[in-house]
Amino acid sequence: MPGGLHRAFLLWGFTTMAEKLIPPRTLKGFRDYLPQVMIPRERIMEIARRVYRSYGFAPIDTPALEYLEILAGKGGEETDKQMYRFQDHGGRWVALRFDLTVPVARFTAQHLNELGIPFKRYHIAPVWRGENTQRGRYREFVQCDFDTIGTRSLTADIETTLVIHDLLRAIGFQEFVIRINNRKLLNGLLERQGLADRAAGVLRALDKWGKIGTEGVKQELEQIVGLTPDQATAVLELTQIHGDHDEVLSQAEKLVQGSAVGEEGVHELREVLRGAAAGGVAPTYLVLDLAIARGLDYYTGTIYETYLTALPGIGSVCSGGRYDNLAELFTTQSLPGVGASLGLDRLLAAMEELGMLEAVSTPAPILLVFFDPGRRDDYLRLAAQLRSAGFNVEFYPEPKKISQQLKYADRRGHRVALVIGESEFEKQVCQVKDLRAGAQKEVPLELKALTEAISEILAR
Amino acid sequence: MPGGLHRAFLLWGFTTMAEKLIPPRTLKGFRDYLPQVMIPRERIMEIARRVYRSYGFAPIDTPALEYLEILAGKGGEETDKQMYRFQDHGGRWVALRFDLTVPVARFTAQHLNELGIPFKRYHIAPVWRGENTQRGRYREFVQCDFDTIGTRSLTADIETTLVIHDLLRAIGFQEFVIRINNRKLLNGLLERQGLADRAAGVLRALDKWGKIGTEGVKQELEQIVGLTPDQATAVLELTQIHGDHDEVLSQAEKLVQGSAVGEEGVHELREVLRGAAAGGVAPTYLVLDLAIARGLDYYTGTIYETYLTALPGIGSVCSGGRYDNLAELFTTQSLPGVGASLGLDRLLAAMEELGMLEAVSTPAPILLVFFDPGRRDDYLRLAAQLRSAGFNVEFYPEPKKISQQLKYADRRGHRVALVIGESEFEKQVCQVKDLRAGAQKEVPLELKALTEAISEILAR
Repeated sequence: MPGGLHRAFLLWGFTTMAEKLIPPRTLKGFRDYLPQVMIPRERIMEIARRVYRSYGFAPIDTPALEYLEILAGKGGEETDKQMYRFQDHGGRWVALRFDLTVPVARFTAQHLNELGIPFKRYHIAPVWRGENTQRGRYREFVQCDFDTIGTRSLTADIETTLVIHDLLRAIGFQEFVIRINNRKLLNGLLERQGLADRAAGVLRALDKWGKIGTEGVKQELEQIVGLTPDQATAVLELTQIHGDHDEVLSQAEKLVQGSAVGEEGVHELREVLRGAAAGGVAPTYLVLDLAIARGLDYYTGTIYETYLTALPGIGSVCSGGRYDNLAELFTTQSLPGVGASLGLDRLLAAMEELGMLEAVSTPAPILLVFFDPGRRDDYLRLAAQLRSAGFNVEFYPEPKKISQQLKYADRRGHRVALVIGESEFEKQVCQVKDLRAGAQKEVPLELKALTEAISEILAR
Repeated sequence: MPGGLHRAFLLWGFTTMAEKLIPPRTLKGFRDYLPQVMIPRERIMEIARRVYRSYGFAPIDTPALEYLEILAGKGGEETDKQMYRFQDHGGRWVALRFDLTVPVARFTAQHLNELGIPFKRYHIAPVWRGENTQRGRYREFVQCDFDTIGTRSLTADIETTLVIHDLLRAIGFQEFVIRINNRKLLNGLLERQGLADRAAGVLRALDKWGKIGTEGVKQELEQIVGLTPDQATAVLELTQIHGDHDEVLSQAEKLVQGSAVGEEGVHELREVLRGAAAGGVAPTYLVLDLAIARGLDYYTGTIYETYLTALPGIGSVCSGGRYDNLAELFTTQSLPGVGASLGLDRLLAAMEELGMLEAVSTPAPILLVFFDPGRRDDYLRLAAQLRSAGFNVEFYPEPKKISQQLKYADRRGHRVALVIGESEFEKQVCQVKDLRAGAQKEVPLELKALTEAISEILAR
């Protein structure tokens, strides 16, 4: 697009003083990100990109707007209702994407020949849903998805576990658990009981656990899904197995014995645990939780949820699973795969609650004070040197009172202020202020000494 | 947002085999970004963030959707026509942002107390315009803006020059020119001739230079704007001054002498050149070009355009300038500032044309071949070690024929393949293949030796 034209258009609105001010406001359910929030947001997205890339996941992007027929009916009735849809200039019905899964299904089907499989992609981008804001939900939020598409190999399930683990660790969490299940266990149990056709209903009931409790689930299994009390008890028995990995697996094995799919589920869980250990995940990070259902019957194998130990109530911060066919609405080629999605905003909310975010609204820890109006060139020269040495340096644009500049630094969260007045220039020294400690040190005005003094403060 | 719910919705569409396939396609004027294009795209955006941050510009984000009344009428008739607008679920008229300048004006007015001034921000985000696609334009594109808001200090103009310079250099360009002008020169000239009220018309005529040439501009100045032939000649004389910085400034000085605003323009250009030199910009990167007009009369001081020496015809890849009042439609507080915008897509097109982009569709230079099916854990362990050493490593998910895995590596653009079969495991060695050179080396199967062998290949 015409970078060259980017601001030409401002003419009409801005040439004359507005007669009436337009109240500046955002739409209900939408929000602005101020630097203090946007800095950690960008940091997490950068970490996600780095971790995804370290496993060979490649970035893609798709348009925010798609043909309505691509998106409609893919997310259930509620999502259909929430979708932002309209007719464009050419009379086409279009809609804003409500997730990144339908777009990647369309994308993969469309470019399959060029992409080849296995295809490992990540996609970090905003999506839109006209949610009920009373539930504290936002209508625009960023998803951070990664998937391995086109392989049934458990290697991809293992790697999904590794990525979730590396991601949380890289962001700074030491204590969390990745809850793992495999959809085949429940399928095996239901198969053994001649209930294979009730899977959807059973999953829907299990998903309500948090709201209605064990008794409620049992009632729903019996009264709505139509299980006998014994069958309902068996389902609850499977999903309530607890203990270490070996205990859970051996108990589950007994319950699904004789069902090929059920036994396969046990085998797959065992392999994923083994592979994750080989890949460097300490066993305490992994919990087998046969109760997690993850949104009904889209998933067909491994399922993941991730909880922060300090804040389990906030819900899963990274979830996903294995599916049999990503894009069956768009292509006849079967595309099995596995992936997960980082809940960026939920994670940021948790980090804020846990005091993991600094109240900083500048990406530059160093403020170079503009003290002597006649020395601008010298300040510019010094700032350039410090940037070449790898520091982010903000140079205050005006030679205002030093107290005002230090107040600015305090408000922004700068860590270091460099003050050089006429007498400092004459003596070729610099006052290096540690703004948090309130301490100050005189240092020779040359790069090596300054680098040392600054690095010392930043390391504190 | 509910990371925990991210795929629950897929149930309805995906549970049953579609009876009729939906053709996978993107809307006219929109495009998918495949890894080969998205990798350099992400790289440039990362460089932009790094350079912006190094000067203390802080990231912000605003919603894609705004109240229509915030956006309407701000970009002129054509932009108004191109805007994607519709009624949302609550019956509100909303629109997709068509640039990042109107949103930052609204944002700054709305959060002024919290932000304080000077406020330095960058914003990298998509915008939407229903452009005529026959002109080769896209309807969705990313803008990368940075601005210093709330100061009249020329320090900010100087820094804008430094940022553009550092940005182009960091992306990998050695040869480019930043063309600089100052709107006050023309204003001064017009003032001297009693034509101060004709500025808009004169600028509009000058902007057509590329299309209608000097004679055409002269005709338009006389016939449409209503200048006398002498006045038109004087305007053309000013805008056609060429030479080194001193020559241009001294000639311009003569033409605007006696006009305070004109003389101020000359002074400001001189200061910007001096400051940029102090900040490390070699003089060859800066050209005074008194012909650039940059979109009529929104800009009021310094103006920037940036051209690649090897591809001047592609147009300016980074443009901007100084304005007197960013947000007068939203607040009574005057907010002068200066900034510019990187034309991401134009730059990428140029880089492709100049052969600066590698044909690579993986972010991982290393492919670990899955050779021995019984050794998955060993491969996983090795991959984890290499990642800890800082390498991006893709582990092929299935133990397919080695020829197939190497074909995959070739297609993706992996640089190194690591092959370890049973005999290699026994001898504790690894075959390290340089995929571009077609060479192979046997290396001890331990981190230090592997790191050295891989680094050697990647450095080639």
